[in-house]
Amino acid sequence: MNKGAIDYSLYLVTDRDLLGTKDLGATVEEAIKGGATLVQIREKNLSTLEFFQLAGEIKVITQKHGVPFIVNDRVDIALAVDADGVHIGQEDMPLPVARKLLGPAKVIGVSVSTFEQALLAQQEGADYLGIGAVFPTATKGDADSVSLEELREIKARIRVPVVAIGGINKNNIHSVMTTGVDGAAVVSAIVACADPYEAALHLRRVMKV
Amino acid sequence: MNKGAIDYSLYLVTDRDLLGTKDLGATVEEAIKGGATLVQIREKNLSTLEFFQLAGEIKVITQKHGVPFIVNDRVDIALAVDADGVHIGQEDMPLPVARKLLGPAKVIGVSVSTFEQALLAQQEGADYLGIGAVFPTATKGDADSVSLEELREIKARIRVPVVAIGGINKNNIHSVMTTGVDGAAVVSAIVACADPYEAALHLRRVMKV
Repeated sequence: MNKGAIDYSLYLVTDRDLLGTKDLGATVEEAIKGGATLVQIREKNLSTLEFFQLAGEIKVITQKHGVPFIVNDRVDIALAVDADGVHIGQEDMPLPVARKLLGPAKVIGVSVSTFEQALLAQQEGADYLGIGAVFPTATKGDADSVSLEELREIKARIRVPVVAIGGINKNNIHSVMTTGVDGAAVVSAIVACADPYEAALHLRRVMKV
Repeated sequence: MNKGAIDYSLYLVTDRDLLGTKDLGATVEEAIKGGATLVQIREKNLSTLEFFQLAGEIKVITQKHGVPFIVNDRVDIALAVDADGVHIGQEDMPLPVARKLLGPAKVIGVSVSTFEQALLAQQEGADYLGIGAVFPTATKGDADSVSLEELREIKARIRVPVVAIGGINKNNIHSVMTTGVDGAAVVSAIVACADPYEAALHLRRVMKV
């Protein structure tokens, strides 16, 4: 995987609690067919064994479609399934430590909600930033909020790719993309939909700026 | 660290929820001074950052005293703080995967509760086994139980060191050691005591067979 060539535009984050009766693997595959360009597995309340097994399943699907696969938080799981990288939050492993374990070839994304955090992560070698929450969200109750204007300002002053996250859906994704960010991360806007393929396809259509 | 020379006899497992007003690091250090021969950090409900930081603190203490330091479950934390190894349960990363990530020099212990699990773990290269729960315990509510007779039988048929775990305290540790096991793992019998040094010292005295 060429880190510089990654398409961050429609960044899917999983949450099996929002699937209803759907299967996670099938949902991810449909989303990719509909236009998701990157997949991050973010699952809480799983044993390490369950997370490892689920990550292995999703890795097979992303690999089949040539889409980068990122593991949330768990560097060990990322190493175990040879994922393309990890996404770490401010409460996860420090970036320099994660980099040491993963090496220079893997992607490391970092969640930030201020310019200062963004700059630090960039200086420490983050490959991309997840910035949010741009809208209120049920999946991350305690997330700090970032207005679209703040998002635009951070993006303008940061060199690495920026992905907006938090409550992004078909009704607001266009406004997010007008800030100049490289991508929008969605959870429920795909995972919670009855037809993830159509949901992704629709998001791709309306996000164009 | 020479894996073959590890003294498993009084194996301390941490649980900060049982500390009361005591400090975890101080408790571990007092326990080592009293005779604990190995320390496993096993802490749930911590963020990865908190677990990493706490593991780093405990590592410094164990290293100072020349006592092996094992991390429960999290291979990434073990790698990040350069612990001596990990302890994995049946719901954690599969042993062959953990071994691949940690390499041959690190210690990998595996929790088992049957002879079949013990044999498999040994065949897969476990350095030691934790067998239990030998007595009912509050810290692991759903643990499978293993009688002292079963413990004796498993120990007799297994080559790698065996550590008994589960509800072991000053009143029953001697009976555990008469089964021929290489060590006894304790949690509350040290961590929950007002004086961890005296608790460890007393356990060492009464465990002798």
